[in-house]
Amino acid sequence: MQVKHPIDSVCIMTDIVLPGETNPLNNLFGGELLARMDRAASIAARRHAGHIVVTASVNHVAFNRSIPLGSVVTIEAKVSRTFTSSMETFIDVWIEDRESGEKTKANEAIYTFVAVDEAGKPVQVRPIEPQTEIEKSRYDAALRRKQLSLVLAGKMNPHDATELKALFM
Amino acid sequence: MQVKHPIDSVCIMTDIVLPGETNPLNNLFGGELLARMDRAASIAARRHAGHIVVTASVNHVAFNRSIPLGSVVTIEAKVSRTFTSSMETFIDVWIEDRESGEKTKANEAIYTFVAVDEAGKPVQVRPIEPQTEIEKSRYDAALRRKQLSLVLAGKMNPHDATELKALFM
Amino acid sequence: MQVKHPIDSVCIMTDIVLPGETNPLNNLFGGELLARMDRAASIAARRHAGHIVVTASVNHVAFNRSIPLGSVVTIEAKVSRTFTSSMETFIDVWIEDRESGEKTKANEAIYTFVAVDEAGKPVQVRPIEPQTEIEKSRYDAALRRKQLSLVLAGKMNPHDATELKALFM
Amino acid sequence: MQVKHPIDSVCIMTDIVLPGETNPLNNLFGGELLARMDRAASIAARRHAGHIVVTASVNHVAFNRSIPLGSVVTIEAKVSRTFTSSMETFIDVWIEDRESGEKTKANEAIYTFVAVDEAGKPVQVRPIEPQTEIEKSRYDAALRRKQLSLVLAGKMNPHDATELKALFM
Amino acid sequence: MQVKHPIDSVCIMTDIVLPGETNPLNNLFGGELLARMDRAASIAARRHAGHIVVTASVNHVAFNRSIPLGSVVTIEAKVSRTFTSSMETFIDVWIEDRESGEKTKANEAIYTFVAVDEAGKPVQVRPIEPQTEIEKSRYDAALRRKQLSLVLAGKMNPHDATELKALFM
Amino acid sequence: MQVKHPIDSVCIMTDIVLPGETNPLNNLFGGELLARMDRAASIAARRHAGHIVVTASVNHVAFNRSIPLGSVVTIEAKVSRTFTSSMETFIDVWIEDRESGEKTKANEAIYTFVAVDEAGKPVQVRPIEPQTEIEKSRYDAALRRKQLSLVLAGKMNPHDATELKALFM
Repeated sequence: MQVKHPIDSVCIMTDIVLPGETNPLNNLFGGELLARMDRAASIAARRHAGHIVVTASVNHVAFNRSIPLGSVVTIEAKVSRTFTSSMETFIDVWIEDRESGEKTKANEAIYTFVAVDEAGKPVQVRPIEPQTEIEKSRYDAALRRKQLSLVLAGKMNPHDATELKALFM
Repeated sequence: MQVKHPIDSVCIMTDIVLPGETNPLNNLFGGELLARMDRAASIAARRHAGHIVVTASVNHVAFNRSIPLGSVVTIEAKVSRTFTSSMETFIDVWIEDRESGEKTKANEAIYTFVAVDEAGKPVQVRPIEPQTEIEKSRYDAALRRKQLSLVLAGKMNPHDATELKALFM
Repeated sequence: MQVKHPIDSVCIMTDIVLPGETNPLNNLFGGELLARMDRAASIAARRHAGHIVVTASVNHVAFNRSIPLGSVVTIEAKVSRTFTSSMETFIDVWIEDRESGEKTKANEAIYTFVAVDEAGKPVQVRPIEPQTEIEKSRYDAALRRKQLSLVLAGKMNPHDATELKALFM
Repeated sequence: MQVKHPIDSVCIMTDIVLPGETNPLNNLFGGELLARMDRAASIAARRHAGHIVVTASVNHVAFNRSIPLGSVVTIEAKVSRTFTSSMETFIDVWIEDRESGEKTKANEAIYTFVAVDEAGKPVQVRPIEPQTEIEKSRYDAALRRKQLSLVLAGKMNPHDATELKALFM
Repeated sequence: MQVKHPIDSVCIMTDIVLPGETNPLNNLFGGELLARMDRAASIAARRHAGHIVVTASVNHVAFNRSIPLGSVVTIEAKVSRTFTSSMETFIDVWIEDRESGEKTKANEAIYTFVAVDEAGKPVQVRPIEPQTEIEKSRYDAALRRKQLSLVLAGKMNPHDATELKALFM
Repeated sequence: MQVKHPIDSVCIMTDIVLPGETNPLNNLFGGELLARMDRAASIAARRHAGHIVVTASVNHVAFNRSIPLGSVVTIEAKVSRTFTSSMETFIDVWIEDRESGEKTKANEAIYTFVAVDEAGKPVQVRPIEPQTEIEKSRYDAALRRKQLSLVLAGKMNPHDATELKALFM
């Protein structure tokens, strides 16, 4: 199986915030942003896998900045690491100043997808090889997050979570 | 400030899955479920706080079972622990068999909200006191999750994350 | 066929009012409320019947209070009486004060559903036995409403509508 | 105040049924039809009144025929009778055969609206004068329906509901 | 094949503008209007053809006036000319003054549809014969627009576009 | 005023086609695509102008290929030419093969926007300078399209439409 790079799967979804997508404070409704990120990240995972993908988990989303009505929102999703049939995707969300065009980071999120065949059975995915510094750092952290998920779900003994454990020693 | 219990804030949102809410595999679209859980959990947090609340983070969502078109879906959200002005809410998602009425767990999720005043400034929230076994276990785990969030965000030294560290020792 | 009680089928749908669901006066759009009540009531009827159900009629909806943007709305639907294959459901709609949590009745509605098999053919449903005072009073009134529907549709001679006629004598 | 006729306020809303508007049986979702009728009928009432209108009640909706995905649906709403500040509107719903163009009646509904000023206070509306046979018959029946609503709401003594009582004598 | 007239296919879609359908300036969102016109015009084309129709092109839409939140919008679509299996439809959009009821033209648009059979293969459509002055003028202009489309797409030599060429000579 | 290039304003909107966005043939509903293109193109125009923009016209949209349910759709919008306060944007729509990742052109569209200040008054926009071959060719054609619009709207004498006239001579 041919190795691919995060850049091969990058999905860019730029869109605006209309009144029907806001909460009562006139900011982008959190649920709407979660849904848009799910769409963008599933496209990145599907591009890497070349297969249908289904959302397996949302590992972390931080709503650091509210996104006001009328904003231009850019969601950029990339596969950060692959495991047998699952793929962690990292999502960066940006808003931009209308006059200067300057972009500011608004949110980050991590979603995991599983590649499946037409019958819904998991299939193996290509390995991925990070290239930039940030891709490498996210690639490394993905293993700790994976171990953490397994530990929290009671599917891994904490003492076997080598990378994670190292954080606390 | 008067103590409240998780049961005081419980929010139940029962609804069906219509064709406009599915993905191409004819199951409930992940983004739609994320949005529904955000609505339900924000109601629980608002009830506990008596204030406007905004989504601060989605800490974990596990999509264990896909939810087919036509299902009756019950989302139950409860505040699991409070910190100064933030509240962790635990969300259980159930689907039921049409003939027998038997309910099966489909998903679990954890969202965190912050209580704010009309100007968007964080305000302090009442403490919460868990009552049932499961409420107590989720209350304890919430502190570890809080520490984990801080460690992963680089805002806490792993060695100070006492509860979390204990897991690996 | 085993008798069931209204409490066995009760459906609770709690949700908020977002800007995309309002009318130009910034209150919950009437059509959106009618749709939500249809979803909630059909779940109650389906739970009682254990079969697919289709909306047969909306018998009465009173919009007593408008529901402002940002409200938490609780819809509670229960089967109030059954006839051969049809079920009358009674729907109560509540809004709550954010600070005190106090609930106020906003609307009432009555919808009727028919249980059908996979081919869309009506099937017989279990009898229902009211338990509380209000359930008993709604159960009795349901027969008068049924007769009224038949009289208005020209399918029953007013003189045979015994319960209804008694009202005017 | 100048008298108007039902034809002056008639509102025609022709539209198709897309997949996002269906129920799991692939027919137009009942809640969606209730919402469309609310929009159409409120336009008719607003045209008659020349004022903002709000939905006061849904008096009756009969779902006689299901409306399949892809259908062309014509909703025709007309004011049938006015009372001080309220207006009863009668709604006919038609579907048409694609090849022959022949139209079939699918549903009927009755909604009542109240005209209000900018502050939401009820204002008086023009009288209406029915012209065709069917408009006259609906105009007469509207009084009986009005009395019935009052009787069922406990706001009128059944013995004073002269027109309605006559039905049963 | 029997000739039909534009009046035989006219589709009237009257609707209001709710907050969920506006842009950040509180006017009807352009994309929502484009979608409504597509629905209305496709109904007119389908009525003329008696077949399924698919959108082939949007030839021209002029947004002359913005349409504020709360407006009553009337879209009137009519087939203006037919070619072998395609139909040009002309769409007029009106808004009305709430108090006086006076209507003002807000937009005009031209969409082209192709009639297809169940397998998606183009089928021939009936000829159309314009009756009013405006229908005749739109019928004539439709041929120039058709030639223009072909010239711009490089499928017709400008010198063969007789009607169009005449404009510039 | 500083000159900008088409590449400075390019807007990429990648998204999938869910069941709620299809027509009865299970392809992306034309109106939904028109709305998505309006959103993407308005972002490109806004980025070029640094001002609020409103849709002025849709000049041409060709639906060459239908886009099936489940497709990944990439909309790429760029400003192609500016006039005093208006901007023509060119939109390319692509779909991709899930396994090979190969992209195919599905549609092309041209929308025109006007830059306005907060009061809705047109403001002047920066000039644009095309760089690639295709950008240059679209820049040149934009003038002919502009003349054509003016001629068809009766606002320009065909004999003054020099560039356009040259096509037919």
